[in-house]
Amino acid sequence: MQKIFNIQTQGRGTYDISAELNLYVRESGIRHGLCHCFIHHTSASLILCENADPDVRHDLETFMSKLVPDGDPMFIHVNEGEDDMPAHVRSVLTQAGISLPITDGRPGLGTWQSLYLWEHRLNPQQRQITLTLIAG
Amino acid sequence: MQKIFNIQTQGRGTYDISAELNLYVRESGIRHGLCHCFIHHTSASLILCENADPDVRHDLETFMSKLVPDGDPMFIHVNEGEDDMPAHVRSVLTQAGISLPITDGRPGLGTWQSLYLWEHRLNPQQRQITLTLIAG
Amino acid sequence: MQKIFNIQTQGRGTYDISAELNLYVRESGIRHGLCHCFIHHTSASLILCENADPDVRHDLETFMSKLVPDGDPMFIHVNEGEDDMPAHVRSVLTQAGISLPITDGRPGLGTWQSLYLWEHRLNPQQRQITLTLIAG
Repeated sequence: MQKIFNIQTQGRGTYDISAELNLYVRESGIRHGLCHCFIHHTSASLILCENADPDVRHDLETFMSKLVPDGDPMFIHVNEGEDDMPAHVRSVLTQAGISLPITDGRPGLGTWQSLYLWEHRLNPQQRQITLTLIAG
Repeated sequence: MQKIFNIQTQGRGTYDISAELNLYVRESGIRHGLCHCFIHHTSASLILCENADPDVRHDLETFMSKLVPDGDPMFIHVNEGEDDMPAHVRSVLTQAGISLPITDGRPGLGTWQSLYLWEHRLNPQQRQITLTLIAG
Repeated sequence: MQKIFNIQTQGRGTYDISAELNLYVRESGIRHGLCHCFIHHTSASLILCENADPDVRHDLETFMSKLVPDGDPMFIHVNEGEDDMPAHVRSVLTQAGISLPITDGRPGLGTWQSLYLWEHRLNPQQRQITLTLIAG
């Protein structure tokens, strides 16, 4: 069972996609198994992150912006601007695909875990995600 | 087939959970397929790491402690102390979920690969892990 | 359905293994499901990366070489040379296993996504990969 959907981002930042995840897992009727989420891009990624205090994602962005600075002169691939290569590096340091357990008909996330799309480009983008659900 | 279990950590460090993995894969009777391990937290993670020389994990800790220093003044989320936000960052830079092949009834790890829970908080914590086994 | 194969690397660098992936997914006859790729080593890893401009992988290598410098005196595990411990760190910061959706009988990669083996050791190595295909 597979579901493909799009998320319109408003530029760099994190976007909670747990609601989509919950919906499609419920629709599938699968009680136990795996839910695999995959983003079809190399300048945006998926992360599991603390969901209670937005400062956590703010600090995560601060950290990543210092680790992989936009416009760093070490980069020669700058076709699409100063955030082009940093977006690719950020994607490699995080993940394009994340699998979650399905337990009792729901994504088996911890209390403080949510699934986020992390847009690494500065400008808004349309991002495609594929969910694949496997019964265990 | 799904198995949920807890690991009690003694604070920051790596904990080999390959024995649990081997046990539950054997119990399942699955000969070929996937074993998905998932940790339900955002301040501890899972890694595959060299298992022969403990210095490797010592050096890994040294590296990560320099990359994401405890108490870094860039962080504003400090509710639970100087290791709070660094633990979240470390988790995002590693993985909450890792899938392994099951081959001939066993986790198909390389000779030098073991699966570790990496506790990122300084204090002991109880951590919950879900294994999901899928026949191929 | 499982397929084990080897890749001979020529030392540090990225090696596109999408062709092997495409071949084995096609051979399996699976129309929808998951394809899990796993590398049985802790000094080489798998990444999804932009495939149009080789400068992207060049810049990625530049970034990683600065983030985890060979011969950094912080490392005490140096048995196999100055690139030994950096290779382990690079592996932990990327991934040993990546799952992809199978859609319409093919790996569901984005237009600009390819799957690469990233060799982190300076010298040539033989690397073993296991593909596990699961029908959805």
